[in-house]
Amino acid sequence: MTQVVGILGGMGPAAGADFVRLFVDACAQHMRAAGEPVRDQSFPEHWLAQVPVPDRSGALERTGEGAHQPLEPMLQALGRLAALGSRAVAIACNTAHAWHATLQQRFPQIELLHVAREVAAHLSARGETQVALMATEGTYRVRLYEQALADSGLPCHLPTAEERRMLMRGIYEGVKAGDLPLAEALFSEVALRLSQRHGDVAIVMGCTEVPLGLQGAAAVHGLKLVDPARVLASALAERAYARA
Amino acid sequence: MTQVVGILGGMGPAAGADFVRLFVDACAQHMRAAGEPVRDQSFPEHWLAQVPVPDRSGALERTGEGAHQPLEPMLQALGRLAALGSRAVAIACNTAHAWHATLQQRFPQIELLHVAREVAAHLSARGETQVALMATEGTYRVRLYEQALADSGLPCHLPTAEERRMLMRGIYEGVKAGDLPLAEALFSEVALRLSQRHGDVAIVMGCTEVPLGLQGAAAVHGLKLVDPARVLASALAERAYARA
Repeated sequence: MTQVVGILGGMGPAAGADFVRLFVDACAQHMRAAGEPVRDQSFPEHWLAQVPVPDRSGALERTGEGAHQPLEPMLQALGRLAALGSRAVAIACNTAHAWHATLQQRFPQIELLHVAREVAAHLSARGETQVALMATEGTYRVRLYEQALADSGLPCHLPTAEERRMLMRGIYEGVKAGDLPLAEALFSEVALRLSQRHGDVAIVMGCTEVPLGLQGAAAVHGLKLVDPARVLASALAERAYARA
Repeated sequence: MTQVVGILGGMGPAAGADFVRLFVDACAQHMRAAGEPVRDQSFPEHWLAQVPVPDRSGALERTGEGAHQPLEPMLQALGRLAALGSRAVAIACNTAHAWHATLQQRFPQIELLHVAREVAAHLSARGETQVALMATEGTYRVRLYEQALADSGLPCHLPTAEERRMLMRGIYEGVKAGDLPLAEALFSEVALRLSQRHGDVAIVMGCTEVPLGLQGAAAVHGLKLVDPARVLASALAERAYARA
């Protein structure tokens, strides 16, 4: 017997669609690891909500009412995922986790997974001791990963101000604007510098655009790149297969 | 203002996840065609239900109660998609369309898209005059595409009995079992034969496994292969952007 789970997406919709793919992959892996055949009927029931949510990074730069704009549509969608029977829900957006505590508080009957805590637990279990973070300015601002990693006793190395600008350029002028070679060059350079500075370091790609820009990049071959969406999708699959 | 739409998936879950990707692509294309910027917030709200549904092909071979097993979970999921506000719903499985009429009848307030009718309309609008169908035995049995194409005045050329066996082998021993080279060889051979027999023919890949097996196959380069999932995803995007 599996549990119904939900995915809160739309931030952006392509990342939400890709998260479902990763979740389905993780479920198939779970079945194979348990020695069970992978059949359509053995997958847990899951629902994806792709709802329009005002820009998360923009809201985090504002104060007053504007700062809370993304909360309302997320609360509504989460309430509906809960009503559909979801026992656990994952949010398919790093930056949206800035509102995690408020969302979880409002719906105590569901477990709202936290991407950074799942990544910290995953790295801790793997025995990593050094972690570096590639992310957006918004994610650095709310210290999403720093806090979760610190709670697991893991240091979080940050890029320099110049490297952060390179990341933002790779995300906005690279991936989002469709210039993948530019993104790959910028992301690779930052990843290599982090690895040179911190040695055997696990590098967290804490923005969904980063893995897209680094896909198949030869320059970063051998680096320990961690995709939080993949870790979060596995964590959600675990919840789905947990006994009630 | 966009309309809320739904996707009835889980048949199988990987095809459902891929359908969301195609729908998101189709929406982005719609925005670009309209000269609008592609922003997260400009996508229509959409919901994906991935529910366990008993084997569709198996049910179509049975009579009595067994023949209706897949209907109940599809009705339940469709009712919930309707309750979430969906005005139009697409089913991410060819064979499940055997129950289309019953599902549509039960929920007259939503438009339940029909993959074969959308493909027929698409091919008709493109000015095609010859169509061939690569599908599963179950899809041939219920004449899913033949009927819809005939209603649009289009002939539907079918593979020979031997070619159908090649398709079933490519689907089950090839794609589903992870032997992609076998699938590519079998699917390519059937596609080439259809093209040799019927000349300038549009070949409908009426089973979600077929495009997976033919991805990047050089042998079929230049053939007019039609992916119904892509056509259905575009049709759903059209409904989402239609004025209320």
